[in-house]
Amino acid sequence: MDDAARIGRDLDEIRKQAPLIHNITNYVVMNNTANALLAIGASPVMAHAEEEVEQMVGYAGALVINIGTLSPAWIRAMRKAQAVAHRNGTPVIIDPVGAGATSLRTNTMRELMQTSAPTVIRGNASEIIALQTDVASTKGVDSQHAASDAEAHARALSAQTGAVVCVSGATDLIIAGDRTWTIQNGHPLMPRVTGLGCTATALIGAFCAVNASPAEATAHAMAVMGIAGEVAGADAKGPGTLQLLFLDALHTIDATTIAAHLQWTSP
Amino acid sequence: MDDAARIGRDLDEIRKQAPLIHNITNYVVMNNTANALLAIGASPVMAHAEEEVEQMVGYAGALVINIGTLSPAWIRAMRKAQAVAHRNGTPVIIDPVGAGATSLRTNTMRELMQTSAPTVIRGNASEIIALQTDVASTKGVDSQHAASDAEAHARALSAQTGAVVCVSGATDLIIAGDRTWTIQNGHPLMPRVTGLGCTATALIGAFCAVNASPAEATAHAMAVMGIAGEVAGADAKGPGTLQLLFLDALHTIDATTIAAHLQWTSP
Amino acid sequence: MDDAARIGRDLDEIRKQAPLIHNITNYVVMNNTANALLAIGASPVMAHAEEEVEQMVGYAGALVINIGTLSPAWIRAMRKAQAVAHRNGTPVIIDPVGAGATSLRTNTMRELMQTSAPTVIRGNASEIIALQTDVASTKGVDSQHAASDAEAHARALSAQTGAVVCVSGATDLIIAGDRTWTIQNGHPLMPRVTGLGCTATALIGAFCAVNASPAEATAHAMAVMGIAGEVAGADAKGPGTLQLLFLDALHTIDATTIAAHLQWTSP
Repeated sequence: MDDAARIGRDLDEIRKQAPLIHNITNYVVMNNTANALLAIGASPVMAHAEEEVEQMVGYAGALVINIGTLSPAWIRAMRKAQAVAHRNGTPVIIDPVGAGATSLRTNTMRELMQTSAPTVIRGNASEIIALQTDVASTKGVDSQHAASDAEAHARALSAQTGAVVCVSGATDLIIAGDRTWTIQNGHPLMPRVTGLGCTATALIGAFCAVNASPAEATAHAMAVMGIAGEVAGADAKGPGTLQLLFLDALHTIDATTIAAHLQWTSP
Repeated sequence: MDDAARIGRDLDEIRKQAPLIHNITNYVVMNNTANALLAIGASPVMAHAEEEVEQMVGYAGALVINIGTLSPAWIRAMRKAQAVAHRNGTPVIIDPVGAGATSLRTNTMRELMQTSAPTVIRGNASEIIALQTDVASTKGVDSQHAASDAEAHARALSAQTGAVVCVSGATDLIIAGDRTWTIQNGHPLMPRVTGLGCTATALIGAFCAVNASPAEATAHAMAVMGIAGEVAGADAKGPGTLQLLFLDALHTIDATTIAAHLQWTSP
Repeated sequence: MDDAARIGRDLDEIRKQAPLIHNITNYVVMNNTANALLAIGASPVMAHAEEEVEQMVGYAGALVINIGTLSPAWIRAMRKAQAVAHRNGTPVIIDPVGAGATSLRTNTMRELMQTSAPTVIRGNASEIIALQTDVASTKGVDSQHAASDAEAHARALSAQTGAVVCVSGATDLIIAGDRTWTIQNGHPLMPRVTGLGCTATALIGAFCAVNASPAEATAHAMAVMGIAGEVAGADAKGPGTLQLLFLDALHTIDATTIAAHLQWTSP
């Protein structure tokens, strides 16, 4: 089975199983994230109350934690959900939005990484550098670096935590121990739409729910992101139309589309 | 006056009166819900602070309570707003998002139903079953059942509470005591857009604000939802474009469009 | 340099500098606001936790405070962020969503205006009237008045606070001491999309980050809003498609488009 067929098989499984993806994510992107998961065939739930996250994560095929808009109560909920997921063997995908910009974000990420090893960490280059150094490397939530700047840090972070580390950018980089993927798919308008990074993290959750290899699941999800962006970008007149055509593309993407577009290097 | 004309008359009234619809709803759908209410001609307000809900609901033509993303402070605000609405005779529409999935949601719904009888309850089949039994019948927020599976439960729930009960699905079911509507309108892409159920609940609020019969208002709102979905679906290329074309359709829908599409049985 | 060229120069600077705009804004519009700022070339961040706002605002080119969905913790965060912005000389733009509708909103606005003078206040006519009188002049968040009804109040509010006051409506009004702009650009569908007023406030932030005259920055931002609305409105079939085409228009708008559309009176 070739690469495109393997990615297509994951898509088929997501559409067949409709795995529940439990998201504790930021206010800005909740709607996009839910729509992207629905478009690809998964079943999203957004639940962040301390009083219910432990019960909800029990049904989930993956837990996605995103620190984009934090508060103390949400941090407690993230820890509780993460502990149950760890106990159940449910994949935990973490998105360190804005790590490096404020101590609250950087410290929360360090704490979440120490509580139990996440399955996958996906961030932009500035965020991944911030997790692995003490340098505040970003002024907000947009990256100040290319993905390749973060390669050594991603490699070290993967070695330290055992997690798959994904650095997204014009070229995406996926590091899992000594295995590396690079993905060239994508469209220049994508960074002009808020929350497509967060969407990528959520889709990694959907792929992890149906593929037992988190590294392969992450690479597959990022390839689908990039290719859906290209398909959407071909007809988009700007970031507004891109956002919707991207959801349309996620709904229809299959092994054939992937075979026609895939530009990656895999281990 | 035939059915389509009666629905069209409600639409005209909404556009003329622009009733304020007070929503205490979840983070995921706030934007969609506000846009749907604006598109149809109502005036939405989203206010959830304990400190202001009692004052805000005083201006409202309807109160819409949706438990999709709960926290203790919001539950208190829901109770306060509901009490004022009950005192003022303002219709209260409740959406039990994810009831049955966690105790927090199920218990909050039971408490809200006991505080004072809601005017309308609209949920998917799994949610309506969960409200009326002790069976946790859903794994998240997407239904595990067809609307017809919930008919007996909806009938019992309506008898117990005095509320109009609406079970949405491929066929929508509206039960008000011994009167029943079924609506066949809709489009298969609709469940692939997050929050269209929540939008339906909010639109029921707008119709209840201008039509003194909650049962008829609910049936009219659900017919408009389904028909707007069909109109949008005719041009949509996927769930992304459907979402926007649906708002466009709500803006222009009238008695003529309704007469051309309406597929329902009414008492 | 003519008016269109001066507006175009601000747009060029926003796209070159990509200033960080720190938003403490309401749940309903966070996504739209972030997308509008990205579309125009700025770098948005949404951060509201008391624990991080002081650090985040330190990187920002402007601070945008919007009271659309308040809670006590957010009010404390607003005050903290505003104090740091004032100390650093960072422009502070305030949006009094729903002021006049509830005491919580009106009192919060009064407190924020007394803590330190905001740079710009942008609201609809009912909101601006409510800030300057004791009359509760709005029933929700949609204006009950035309912008011209609020002119005397806007003038008094500007004199009292030293802030630029912008009243948006079919005709926008910008008052800065004894200077006045009126802008006729815009499209009738714009009030049918939620949060375009909030978007205007955020764009004023982006212009204030690159133009040392807050009055001129505000007028330029409002002209760009109105013209992008017209460009989008020309192709929109309703409020759904308008919303997206508006983002596309923000992404491409330049001095040439502005010269072809601008309808304003400037001092």
